[in-house]
Amino acid sequence: MSDNPRLQPPGGTEMLAWVRHYRRAWLSGDLTAGLVLSIMVIPQSMAYAMLAGMPVQVGLYASLLPLLGYALFGSSMSMSVGPVAVTGLMTATLLAPLASIGSPDYLQLAVWLALLSGGMLFVLGLLRLGFLANFLSHPVISGFISGAAILILFSQLPSLLGRESLPHGLRELVREWHLVNTLVLGMGLAALAWLLYARSWMAGHLRGLGLPGALATLLARLAPIVVVVVAVWATWYFDLAAHGVPVVGHLPAGLPALVWSTPGLGDLRQLLLPAALISLVTFVESVSIAQSLARRKRQSINPDRELLGLGAANLGSAVTGGFAVAGGFSRSSVNIEAGANTPVAGVIAALIIGLILLTVAPLFAYLPLVMLAAVIMVAVTPLIDVRSLIRAWRYDRAEGLTLLSTLLGVLILGVEGGIILGVCWSIVAQLWRGSRPHVAVIGRVPDTHYFRNTKRHLVETVPQLLALRIDENIFFANTKAVEQAIYQALADYPDTREVLLILSAVNHIDSTGLDMLSELTEGLNERGIHLHLAEVKGPLMDHLEHTDWITRQVDQLFPSTHIAFNTLAELKRPD
Amino acid sequence: MSDNPRLQPPGGTEMLAWVRHYRRAWLSGDLTAGLVLSIMVIPQSMAYAMLAGMPVQVGLYASLLPLLGYALFGSSMSMSVGPVAVTGLMTATLLAPLASIGSPDYLQLAVWLALLSGGMLFVLGLLRLGFLANFLSHPVISGFISGAAILILFSQLPSLLGRESLPHGLRELVREWHLVNTLVLGMGLAALAWLLYARSWMAGHLRGLGLPGALATLLARLAPIVVVVVAVWATWYFDLAAHGVPVVGHLPAGLPALVWSTPGLGDLRQLLLPAALISLVTFVESVSIAQSLARRKRQSINPDRELLGLGAANLGSAVTGGFAVAGGFSRSSVNIEAGANTPVAGVIAALIIGLILLTVAPLFAYLPLVMLAAVIMVAVTPLIDVRSLIRAWRYDRAEGLTLLSTLLGVLILGVEGGIILGVCWSIVAQLWRGSRPHVAVIGRVPDTHYFRNTKRHLVETVPQLLALRIDENIFFANTKAVEQAIYQALADYPDTREVLLILSAVNHIDSTGLDMLSELTEGLNERGIHLHLAEVKGPLMDHLEHTDWITRQVDQLFPSTHIAFNTLAELKRPD
Repeated sequence: MSDNPRLQPPGGTEMLAWVRHYRRAWLSGDLTAGLVLSIMVIPQSMAYAMLAGMPVQVGLYASLLPLLGYALFGSSMSMSVGPVAVTGLMTATLLAPLASIGSPDYLQLAVWLALLSGGMLFVLGLLRLGFLANFLSHPVISGFISGAAILILFSQLPSLLGRESLPHGLRELVREWHLVNTLVLGMGLAALAWLLYARSWMAGHLRGLGLPGALATLLARLAPIVVVVVAVWATWYFDLAAHGVPVVGHLPAGLPALVWSTPGLGDLRQLLLPAALISLVTFVESVSIAQSLARRKRQSINPDRELLGLGAANLGSAVTGGFAVAGGFSRSSVNIEAGANTPVAGVIAALIIGLILLTVAPLFAYLPLVMLAAVIMVAVTPLIDVRSLIRAWRYDRAEGLTLLSTLLGVLILGVEGGIILGVCWSIVAQLWRGSRPHVAVIGRVPDTHYFRNTKRHLVETVPQLLALRIDENIFFANTKAVEQAIYQALADYPDTREVLLILSAVNHIDSTGLDMLSELTEGLNERGIHLHLAEVKGPLMDHLEHTDWITRQVDQLFPSTHIAFNTLAELKRPD
Repeated sequence: MSDNPRLQPPGGTEMLAWVRHYRRAWLSGDLTAGLVLSIMVIPQSMAYAMLAGMPVQVGLYASLLPLLGYALFGSSMSMSVGPVAVTGLMTATLLAPLASIGSPDYLQLAVWLALLSGGMLFVLGLLRLGFLANFLSHPVISGFISGAAILILFSQLPSLLGRESLPHGLRELVREWHLVNTLVLGMGLAALAWLLYARSWMAGHLRGLGLPGALATLLARLAPIVVVVVAVWATWYFDLAAHGVPVVGHLPAGLPALVWSTPGLGDLRQLLLPAALISLVTFVESVSIAQSLARRKRQSINPDRELLGLGAANLGSAVTGGFAVAGGFSRSSVNIEAGANTPVAGVIAALIIGLILLTVAPLFAYLPLVMLAAVIMVAVTPLIDVRSLIRAWRYDRAEGLTLLSTLLGVLILGVEGGIILGVCWSIVAQLWRGSRPHVAVIGRVPDTHYFRNTKRHLVETVPQLLALRIDENIFFANTKAVEQAIYQALADYPDTREVLLILSAVNHIDSTGLDMLSELTEGLNERGIHLHLAEVKGPLMDHLEHTDWITRQVDQLFPSTHIAFNTLAELKRPD
């Protein structure tokens, strides 16, 4: 990888620019990254397939075409796309009401879900509608991811205990302890310990042994494959399946067949909302990952091309019988840390995974499911983001509540209800904020051109003139409050003959607001009080200039508060 | 009625102040108004009861206690409360899925709907939650009322044709013309003609005959009672019921019994959403009527007391077996035109209606239903408000679309779906507006302290300094757009070393916006560009002052753009 920015692969701008401008110097980085990536995603992909209620090999299938599809259309140079925890969970929970997990119907629905969501993403990309994702605020995303991570953690407890389902409480767990397969539990805890060690301390210890920092980090990232290899060997050698350890079982060799199937109208209707939600989450999560990766390398990404890339990736997953995929944070981090310069790294990873499917994949039949559960649990724990909750709460109670209600919504109502609740909550919070406008009576800072709130600063006022600064767009949710504030100010300053509204902070007035202002002005005029405006912004004036309010009811318009103050303070009207 | 404002009845402020301060001079106005009001509301109330799917006498019952209840708690001196077209329609359409119209179950549900909605309104009043109604924007209200009026018009066509239900099309109407009762149709058209004449020309003609203007207007308003009297006489004299003219039929004499019944949990659950919607519409409509009446007499109203008054009115209607009531525009107009000074007018009207129930009410058994249909049709036609649609459309496409989609929503999805669609649409329109922020590169108007958009004015700029004014609150829906606008400006001004954000029009920054600004500042700092702020508003600063963004990343804070410009234009930094 070159440090000269001119020699860096271009991100974001032109489609496939990295192909036309590919430099040999980038190849070694891309090769290493592809190899490392493939080793890292094999256990993860199988684990997330299990989470999604699919056969584990489907996780590997969903790591082939998506990487190629994203490489063709996406704009990030280092993001890696494939099965991730959240799409796995969403697939399982969104489809659970429609078909029993693992049944042929279920597998078909999962494929259609990926197909539909891929189609939606691609079409949104073509229509350049990437901005739609802006309606997910950060607290909603953070609350959603934390809630999903907690759900995922709990979903893995039965596998960890070697049971079919979770006991209803601790008391029941103790009473039915004989049903717990302690061999499975022991293997699971050992794997968890190893994986946690690898994540938190291994890199430091390897560096202590004299390895270069980057290599130490990478080796630690690859620790999960050790779990897989050791577990496969031990299961085969000790014939653990015969001791009641649930294993992956039959796993066909070879590449997936390409199958295109179209859902019927009934299925389509059932899958529309789930597909829309999964698309939304996929897009928002992936774009934020792509952006943070691009910032690291001072590149840029293009949200509409991200939509195309993610759409193509999901379509690719669907035609190989896979489930919904997205950009993954840990897989992308490994990719960039291993030196990926372009999507070539992803293509190489896909080739290696394909090779593994053709050769050693049947060995994974010996893999105990508890190992995959351990991989999942360690992968999702860092997604529970308590720090964001604290930060949002400190900054603004409403935002903290948004985050918390999204999180609890996910836990109580499920992923669907949680995300809808969060979006509604953040919209209501935004309206609520706008519905309590700050309206300040202002005066002049002595001997200056500046005007400030009379309640915060020592300023001069003129008895006949009431100057009010409205610090909010005037729209349906706050018209009553603005009206009330103005009448309150009039009651506080009973000698007022001229009212000056300073609109420097008003960017829009909707028709409800306009109706109120018009009635207000009429009421003032009847009482012999005149209304003037100052600092009306250009775009707002474009809107207002033909209304009766401006042309007939408002007295004077001033470009600045200073001029308005000077003119109106001197004004003598005949009584 | 006195012209001296000190002698006018106080509105809005104290509870029942009009009782303590009652003046003999007000009595004659109140008496006349009470008499006129009672005559006017008798046909209307019966008609709206028919619209609501209730026996016609229930309309009269619902005109007794509501007037007293509102008089006790309400704040308007001239609003008249009772059955209105919209609550009649809403009762019928909201209850239609729950029970067959006219059945005992249906009558019970209608009473409970009034009870529940009255309870909600009263509790909201006690909690001073009147501001909740602000979430209905004017276009939504206007679209809703127009849509409801169209629905009501169509609902009366079968009665006009003397048929049970509407034919499916014009062709079917012609083919089944023999089913149309032409006698009924003729009576209906005659009544429509008379009512339309009375509304549009009668007052002018009466004035032409030498009557004083106010009296002429009042007499014209009372024309519907003529229809009722003539129709009752003709039906009795010609025994029209025997000729297949549907009539009111049995109508019991006497006052309604007071009955209190409480709905069960199942009914309660079914009725909650309908009651909430009917409460919302009742409150919004009534308050806007009360406000326009109060303005005419330079009085004021109190929204929370309106909630109490409307709540008491609906509870009063419920205990007499009535349905949901609200403030009516035409009945209130008649009240104020006839000289009402205080709610005493309403109390007198209630007494007169009670007297009529005790005496001549059984005669209404002869009233043909088609007359009531004609009364309804003439009453609701002016509610179809095309002018508001045109005005909203001209002012802002989004507002016109909100109005239109609410109207069509009511027609296609029903009153429930229409109002929910309208509220959602207006919220989305508001977010949409906020999601496209105006960000201006500004410069100094030569030799002044003023700063303006470089694209709209001839201003001076400094090469190293990029001054940007953000004309919108920064929140989740527009963070991407603000970020993009800033980067675009940086690309347009490549020599920038100092970026100045002028926040005079920014009243809030949410946590999503803060995250964006923080990342943006970090990105700029990495490129050796410094970020400064000017004109941060007091309330916003209270929020921001402890964030990392302000304390660590932002370079300087300036009280005014002028000072910032002077300081930053001179700034020399070591390279």
